Amino acid sequence: MNRGSGLPGEFELIARYFAPLARGFPGAYGLLDDAAVIAPAAGNELVAKTDAIVGGVHFLPSDPPDLVARKALRVNLSDLAAKGAVARTYMLDLMLPDAIGEAWIAGFAQGLAQDQHEYGVHLIGGDTDSTPGPVSVAIMAFGEVPAGRIIRRGGARPGDAIFVTGTIGDAALGLEVLCGRLPELAAASAKSLIERYRLPLPRVVLGPRLIGLATAAIDVSDGLIADLSHICEVSDLSAIVEAPRVPLSLAARAAIETGQEDLLATALTGGDDYEILFTAPKAAVDELAELSDSLGIAITGIGYMAAPTAGTEKRVTVADVDDRRLMFAREGWRHF
Amino acid sequence: MNRGSGLPGEFELIARYFAPLARGFPGAYGLLDDAAVIAPAAGNELVAKTDAIVGGVHFLPSDPPDLVARKALRVNLSDLAAKGAVARTYMLDLMLPDAIGEAWIAGFAQGLAQDQHEYGVHLIGGDTDSTPGPVSVAIMAFGEVPAGRIIRRGGARPGDAIFVTGTIGDAALGLEVLCGRLPELAAASAKSLIERYRLPLPRVVLGPRLIGLATAAIDVSDGLIADLSHICEVSDLSAIVEAPRVPLSLAARAAIETGQEDLLATALTGGDDYEILFTAPKAAVDELAELSDSLGIAITGIGYMAAPTAGTEKRVTVADVDDRRLMFAREGWRHF
Repeated sequence: MNRGSGLPGEFELIARYFAPLARGFPGAYGLLDDAAVIAPAAGNELVAKTDAIVGGVHFLPSDPPDLVARKALRVNLSDLAAKGAVARTYMLDLMLPDAIGEAWIAGFAQGLAQDQHEYGVHLIGGDTDSTPGPVSVAIMAFGEVPAGRIIRRGGARPGDAIFVTGTIGDAALGLEVLCGRLPELAAASAKSLIERYRLPLPRVVLGPRLIGLATAAIDVSDGLIADLSHICEVSDLSAIVEAPRVPLSLAARAAIETGQEDLLATALTGGDDYEILFTAPKAAVDELAELSDSLGIAITGIGYMAAPTAGTEKRVTVADVDDRRLMFAREGWRHF
Repeated sequence: MNRGSGLPGEFELIARYFAPLARGFPGAYGLLDDAAVIAPAAGNELVAKTDAIVGGVHFLPSDPPDLVARKALRVNLSDLAAKGAVARTYMLDLMLPDAIGEAWIAGFAQGLAQDQHEYGVHLIGGDTDSTPGPVSVAIMAFGEVPAGRIIRRGGARPGDAIFVTGTIGDAALGLEVLCGRLPELAAASAKSLIERYRLPLPRVVLGPRLIGLATAAIDVSDGLIADLSHICEVSDLSAIVEAPRVPLSLAARAAIETGQEDLLATALTGGDDYEILFTAPKAAVDELAELSDSLGIAITGIGYMAAPTAGTEKRVTVADVDDRRLMFAREGWRHF
C-alpha cells in the first residue's frame, strides 16, 4: 500500500480498526491470514453479493464516515435479505485518498461496528489501498439460505400479486430535499425523508421469512418500476402496478402534495428504497398479513403479474386512480 | 450507475461482456439475479479472499486492459493457492471513469475470459460503477479446501525449513527496467523481467499439493522478507534466510550483476513475486523434491525457523555468503 505520511501503516490500521471487527468469527483468523474460511451450516448454501459505493457518485465526500460505512454494508445486506438469505459475514475493500485522516477511518470502523452489532455480521477479510481518486468502498457480503431455496428474480407466475414492504419514495424525495428542491416542505417531513436517504433499513428479518411464500423477489435500489422490470424480464412476464396502492409515508405524501411536477414519478422511479419487492400467489395474502402483523412491517399489494407484453412495449404498466395508464419519461412521467 | 454518454448502459454492458463469463457456473444465474449461490463440495470449506488494484497505484492507466484484468484476478488466485485452496469462482467490482471507452471494457473482459479458461474459474457476480477517479478493480475470489486443512500463516515450528517456489525478484527488477533504471541490461533479460512484473503466475497447481506438507504458507506479494516476517509474527518465531540460497533467475542475476547498489535488496524486498513461501519439517524435503520434479516447479530451501527473537529485534535475519548479517533499510540494505 502506498500511503501519505499522515497515517499509520496498513498493518497498524488493520490491527487498530479492523481486526476488532473480526472477533467472534473464527474463520476470519483475526485478519492475520491471507484468506478467510466460511462454511454454511449443514443443509444450507452460501449466498454472495457485492456492491461498491464511490465518493461523489453514491455519497458525498462530506458525509459522516460512519454513515458511509453503514450505507455500504446495508445495501449489500438488503440484497441478501431480498433473496431470503440470513447475512453472516462480509469482506471490505477500502480505497482511500492519501489526504484522508485517521479520524475518518476511525469513524468508518465505528459505523461498521455499530451495524455489525445491529445485524449480527462479522468482517472476515479485506484490503486497504491508496487511491488518487475519491474514497471508494467495495463490500462483499455472505449469507445463508436452506439449499435450493434462494428467492430468485425469475420465479414469478402470471396472476401472482405484487407486494412491497414499507414505503416507497422516501429516499429519493430525501435527496430532493438535500438538493434544495423542496423548500416549502415542513421540517419534520424533510428530516424524515433525509434520514431514509442517508441510511437504508434493509429488511433482514422479513426477507428469510418470505421463503416458501414469495415466487420472486428483489430489493428496491434502482427504483420500484425499474426493479419490477427486472423481475418481469427474468420471469418473462409483464406487470401492472396500481399507482394509488403504492405505499407512501406521510412525509412522502406531504412532499408530493407540494404540487411540484414529477414528485410521484420521483418516488416510483428514484430508488434507494431498500424495501423488498416480491411476487406471491394471491392465496398467500393471509399468511403475508400475519407475517406483517407479527413483524410490525407493512406489506402492501400494489398490482399483479400478467402474460408477457409483445415486442418492444414496456413490461411494467402503471395505472393511475381512474385506470388511465401513466407513462414514464427518463426523469418523469406523463399521461397519454 | 451514472455514466457518460459514450457507453452502453450498465445492463447492456453486463449482458455483452460479463454475462458470458458466468456461463458454466449455475449458481451465478447468468448474472441475471442479485446474488450468487455457492456451496463447497461435501467435506470442503470455502476460502475467500479479496484484493483490489487501483490505476496509478498498482498499474499504469496506459497498461493494456486485458493485462489489468488478469493481474487483478491472478493476485487473488495466488493467495488462494498459497492457502492450499483450489480456486472456483470470483466476483468483480469495476469502477470506471466516464471517459473510458467500450474498447477498454471489451479488452478487460477478454483478459478475464482468457484467465478463466487458464485457471478454470467463473465470474459469479459483481458491480460496475462510475468514478471520478481512476479505474479501480476489486476482486473477491473463492476456492475450496478440505475442511480444516487450510494452510495458515501461524503453523510454523522452530527448526522447520523455509522454502520458496520459482524465482524471487524478477517482478521488482522488471519494474526497475520499466522505470529506466537498468539501461545496460541485455534486451532479452529486460523483457523477461518485465513480463514477470506485468503478469503474475500464481502457483495454483502446486498450492493445494502442499496440504499435509507445509506447516505455514503465504504468497510473496509484499516482498520475500516482509512476507516471511508475517509468518514469523503469526507463528511467533524468528527466521534465518541464507541470502545466497534465494533462487534468482538468470535475468535477475544479470540485472544484479550490473553492479548497481541495492538490486539484491530490491529482489528480496520488492515484492510482486506471487511465488509461494512456506515452511515444512526438514523430513518433508524428499517429498517436496518429488513434487517439484513431477510438477516441473522449482522449490528451493532458503533458511530455517528459530525461536522468537527478543524485544524489538527484527524477526527475519538475512545472512550473506560469509555468514555476515545483512540489514535492510527501508529501501535497501547494508552490511554492519
